Amino acid sequence: MNKEIIKKLDFKKGDGLIPVVVQDFTSKDLLMLAYVNKAALKKTLETGYAHYWSRSRKKLWMKGESSGNTQKIKKILTDCDYDTIVYLVIQKGPACHTKKSTCFHNIVSEN
Amino acid sequence: MNKEIIKKLDFKKGDGLIPVVVQDFTSKDLLMLAYVNKAALKKTLETGYAHYWSRSRKKLWMKGESSGNTQKIKKILTDCDYDTIVYLVIQKGPACHTKKSTCFHNIVSEN
Repeated sequence: MNKEIIKKLDFKKGDGLIPVVVQDFTSKDLLMLAYVNKAALKKTLETGYAHYWSRSRKKLWMKGESSGNTQKIKKILTDCDYDTIVYLVIQKGPACHTKKSTCFHNIVSEN
Repeated sequence: MNKEIIKKLDFKKGDGLIPVVVQDFTSKDLLMLAYVNKAALKKTLETGYAHYWSRSRKKLWMKGESSGNTQKIKKILTDCDYDTIVYLVIQKGPACHTKKSTCFHNIVSEN
């Protein structure tokens, strides 16, 4: 765990939340995007399983706590601005609540 | 272009902005995260090149307009909630202003 990098994370831009891009560690498929506050990131680092802050339910949750479709953390990255996080995960079952493997299943355009 | 899907996009949650996850079409590497308003998405769809809304400069910009490191759009996706977008792109040069290939080059933790 890199404490110097963690200190730099910018939780102020989005009401104390940072967006987390979730990518499958093996296939590199994009799975979903969710948000963390400091507590959700701390819980993720402590447990090794993806936790998020739910903007709609206004509570900390563990991905898979009801569905069983957990995300085991392999690696966590942040960007040059320290205002976005990437979780590289081993996804158990489908990532999306629709039972699709990824939340990104709607095509806007194709060239 | 899927107009029905575009109509469903939820620009209201984040001050009229939607986060865009940018992924390399070929390597599937994650490159960056940026934001669009309706105008930036429209410009992207019209030109076939990635445009964003800059939150710091408060203006619409085309990726690469000054650096030349443009992003040619291959595919645009949205998620089950219609509140996140993915651009799959052909990246010219490095994606990051630091000259690294991706903005996600800071390791927070590794398991």
